[in-house]
Amino acid sequence: MRISARNILKGKVVKIVRGAVNAEVTLELQGGTQVVSIITNGSVDSLGLKEGKEAYAVVKASSVMIAVD
Amino acid sequence: MRISARNILKGKVVKIVRGAVNAEVTLELQGGTQVVSIITNGSVDSLGLKEGKEAYAVVKASSVMIAVD
Amino acid sequence: MRISARNILKGKVVKIVRGAVNAEVTLELQGGTQVVSIITNGSVDSLGLKEGKEAYAVVKASSVMIAVD
Amino acid sequence: MRISARNILKGKVVKIVRGAVNAEVTLELQGGTQVVSIITNGSVDSLGLKEGKEAYAVVKASSVMIAVD
Amino acid sequence: MRISARNILKGKVVKIVRGAVNAEVTLELQGGTQVVSIITNGSVDSLGLKEGKEAYAVVKASSVMIAVD
Amino acid sequence: MRISARNILKGKVVKIVRGAVNAEVTLELQGGTQVVSIITNGSVDSLGLKEGKEAYAVVKASSVMIAVD
Repeated sequence: MRISARNILKGKVVKIVRGAVNAEVTLELQGGTQVVSIITNGSVDSLGLKEGKEAYAVVKASSVMIAVD
Repeated sequence: MRISARNILKGKVVKIVRGAVNAEVTLELQGGTQVVSIITNGSVDSLGLKEGKEAYAVVKASSVMIAVD
Repeated sequence: MRISARNILKGKVVKIVRGAVNAEVTLELQGGTQVVSIITNGSVDSLGLKEGKEAYAVVKASSVMIAVD
Repeated sequence: MRISARNILKGKVVKIVRGAVNAEVTLELQGGTQVVSIITNGSVDSLGLKEGKEAYAVVKASSVMIAVD
Repeated sequence: MRISARNILKGKVVKIVRGAVNAEVTLELQGGTQVVSIITNGSVDSLGLKEGKEAYAVVKASSVMIAVD
Repeated sequence: MRISARNILKGKVVKIVRGAVNAEVTLELQGGTQVVSIITNGSVDSLGLKEGKEAYAVVKASSVMIAVD
C-alpha cells in the first residue's frame, strides 16, 4: 500500500511504553535522531512492533509545523 | 519558547511553494532526509522563511504514525 | 506497507479539485457514503489518483471525534 | 450546532475501552464498517456514550489521507 | 449536535480569505483574542460564514500543544 | 524559538491529570475560558508544568474547525 502522507522516515523501534489504550513508540532514524509517536495498543499489536524492529515514522505534511530560533 | 511537541528536527529550508492561503515548505534535515510541511502563508511571512534559512520541523507525537514493510 | 492508522476505508475516487498546493479528493465508499480529503498535489501525482480509481481513505484514530444528536 | 468538518459518518457505538485520560471508542457504520476513535474520558462522559447508542464519527478533511494498493 | 471536541470557543468571524480549495477564517473571541482556522471552501459555503457572523472555534484536545517561555 | 502555529493563547495551568503515557492539561486563559490539551507525560516533565504555572495553548490553524449554531 502506498499512502499520500509525504513524510515517511525509516528507522528502528528503540522503545515502547504501553498505557491502557495508547502506547508511546520511539523510533531511531538513520543518523541517530529519535522520533516519538503515540499510537493505539491495537496498532502496536497488529503491526507486531517490538524493540529492534525496522519501521517507518509516517507524518502527513499538514501536521508538520516549522520553527526558527 | 519551549513547546510540548516531542519531535523537533533541525534542517534547512530548500523549497517554498505558495498558494492562495497555504504554502508547502520543504526542509532538508542533517543527513539529507527531506520533510514536507503545509503551513499558512502568514506563517511563512512572520517567520521570514526563505530558501537556505535554518529551521526546525516540529511534529506533535500524536500526529506520528508507524508503518512496517 | 502496513500502517498504524486504525481506519482504512475502501472506496473509489469520484472527484479531484486542485489548488496551488493542496487538492480536495472525494472518495465514495462502498454503500455510497462520501469521504472528503485534503492532500497535497504532490501526493495526487505520486499516487496517480484520478476519477474512477480505487483508493482508501486512511484516518488515525486520534483524528476521529464522536458526536451525538 | 453545525460544524465545518466535512466527514460526519453515522453509526452506533459498539465498544468503549477507557484508560486513565483517553478512551478508545469503536463505532459500527451502516454497512458494517468499523471506525475507531480516541477521545478523552471527559467526552465519553459528557456525551453519555455507551454501547448501542447512535453516534457519528466526525473527521476534518485535512486529517484524511489517501492510499492505493 | 454535540461533539467530543473539548474546546469550543465562542467568537465572531472577522476575516475570510479564500484559496482554490481552502479558506483561512479568522475569529475574534470575546476579550479580543484572534483564532485562525483553515477549513475548506465547501465548509465556508455550507455554514454560510461571512464577516460579522457569530461562530465557534472547535479544537480537539489532542491537537492542542502547550508551550512555556 | 518562534513557531508557525498561528494560535498561541496565553493562560495558566489549572489542572493536570496523568495517565500511563498521556496527560490531560487544562489551561485557563485570560478572561476565564478553559482550554484542554492532551500531551505526553514526557512533555509535562520536560516543560516543568504544574498548577499555577503560566503557559500557552498552541494550535496549528489547520487543526481548528468552525461551528455555527
